[in-house]
Amino acid sequence: MQGLIMSSSSKTIILATFFLLLLALSSAIGADAHAAGRNKRRLVSSDSEDEPCKKMTLYYHDILYEAVPSNETANATSSAATLPTAMSNATYFGMLVVFDDPVTESKALPVVAEDVAARAQGFYFYNGKAKFNAWFAMSLVFNSTGCRGTLNLMGADLMDQKTRDISVVGGTGDFFMALGVATLRTDATEGFFYFRLQMDIKLYQCYL
Amino acid sequence: MQGLIMSSSSKTIILATFFLLLLALSSAIGADAHAAGRNKRRLVSSDSEDEPCKKMTLYYHDILYEAVPSNETANATSSAATLPTAMSNATYFGMLVVFDDPVTESKALPVVAEDVAARAQGFYFYNGKAKFNAWFAMSLVFNSTGCRGTLNLMGADLMDQKTRDISVVGGTGDFFMALGVATLRTDATEGFFYFRLQMDIKLYQCYL
Amino acid sequence: MQGLIMSSSSKTIILATFFLLLLALSSAIGADAHAAGRNKRRLVSSDSEDEPCKKMTLYYHDILYEAVPSNETANATSSAATLPTAMSNATYFGMLVVFDDPVTESKALPVVAEDVAARAQGFYFYNGKAKFNAWFAMSLVFNSTGCRGTLNLMGADLMDQKTRDISVVGGTGDFFMALGVATLRTDATEGFFYFRLQMDIKLYQCYL
Repeated sequence: MQGLIMSSSSKTIILATFFLLLLALSSAIGADAHAAGRNKRRLVSSDSEDEPCKKMTLYYHDILYEAVPSNETANATSSAATLPTAMSNATYFGMLVVFDDPVTESKALPVVAEDVAARAQGFYFYNGKAKFNAWFAMSLVFNSTGCRGTLNLMGADLMDQKTRDISVVGGTGDFFMALGVATLRTDATEGFFYFRLQMDIKLYQCYL
Repeated sequence: MQGLIMSSSSKTIILATFFLLLLALSSAIGADAHAAGRNKRRLVSSDSEDEPCKKMTLYYHDILYEAVPSNETANATSSAATLPTAMSNATYFGMLVVFDDPVTESKALPVVAEDVAARAQGFYFYNGKAKFNAWFAMSLVFNSTGCRGTLNLMGADLMDQKTRDISVVGGTGDFFMALGVATLRTDATEGFFYFRLQMDIKLYQCYL
Repeated sequence: MQGLIMSSSSKTIILATFFLLLLALSSAIGADAHAAGRNKRRLVSSDSEDEPCKKMTLYYHDILYEAVPSNETANATSSAATLPTAMSNATYFGMLVVFDDPVTESKALPVVAEDVAARAQGFYFYNGKAKFNAWFAMSLVFNSTGCRGTLNLMGADLMDQKTRDISVVGGTGDFFMALGVATLRTDATEGFFYFRLQMDIKLYQCYL
């Protein structure tokens, strides 16, 4: 008899337990189906440094108007908005440069429009007193059929280090709500009028 | 007898299962109560683009000192810190403007202090060589009884696009740790001396 | 008999239930072991404002080249890249200052290199028309044996408030992917040529 009574109550309890489990499962499945039905991207935060949710390597080309030979001014993509200050004009301390620079997937300067992966729009200034140093803030503006959106970056460009990291502080469009790190490496320079940075960009927050 | 024995062990197992479920439930309830007891806000990350944790529409008004008629300089809220560069002064390339601009909830310029929802403090510069283009970084400073805190924004203001997105890269006070996107739309211009931007701000990370 | 039959089906159900619980447990334990095996830092998001994942107090020292007595220019660490504009030069509206300033753990100016906890590299500008106000963007660059990496900050420096918050919008190295808030307090000023800010930095997203 005790067995029977127990079994009867256990039946209720087990059913209740299962009901809760099924509820949880169906709710999870339902949420997925719901999201899938609306085709929404969802937040993905990388759990470790080794597993970015997206990565890419790009090359940033800066051609400075003030420094190019006079027959090449048409190619310039950046210009100094302020002069170096008297505190240290040997290292251009305080010189602020505004740019709308081409960004490419290979190292070569772009020849045709299709070679441009993105535009880098922003500014840098020199802020080293005894040696060259710089600071950057910019947007990478992607506008091809394959990729539309922006990545916003800022940080110290520690020019005496072979590689240095700046932050990806936000993104829009295909890079909606992105966060990450960009590793900069000076890849080439031609006097003061041209330099190329390799940018290894790794995103750790993405909506996929 | 087997029924009885089974029931006895099943009783233990069922109780253990239920204990775990109750533990989970009470832990969840307990955490809420704990938080409520300390009146703490908690991190909420939106899972999809369609569900911001907070959204608002604001209007940004910029009245440029250098361009206003001379009898209206008292109304100016922004001023050029640098002149356009020789690379392209037709599009004001390199002109940097610093502002402390009023931000309102309706389109009209504020008449009394209560009309000002926030101050926009920051800068923009023109960085288009062949056509107008700009880049922004600013803080929206809220300081009313209903809302105190700041939102920090940066990004490319792609002036040839009807709408363009910049990033909300951080927030403080009532916008503690906010992340999101602001969609800009040029809503009105009067020559070069006034422009109004509609800002549709959507936050996807909030502490609520 | 009913007791026996019931018990038999309940046995299956209970085992299934337990299997699910064990699966959940082992999956959780497995994930931890996996991470530990690879010695990776993991994302930690603070759930409440009272529990930052990291905090520190630092002092920022700014010595302005244009304002220091002529026999002390060697000590200057910042310099004005633009002059105040005509809109309001009494409050230095539009004056942009670029800096590479020392940051210390105690209030005193650094005497030897070891006193410098970090360099603050960035800029501020004055943007108050009727009263002093400023806006900041900077990187804190840590480069000691104990700490390497950067924190990137931006926001309004509301000078008429005793304390004001700016955002930590990103980090690199030991501050990989950091997000947080820095509370600024003007701690000392000497005329216009020196000021010290106390910075209470609290991070709410860390990789630990």
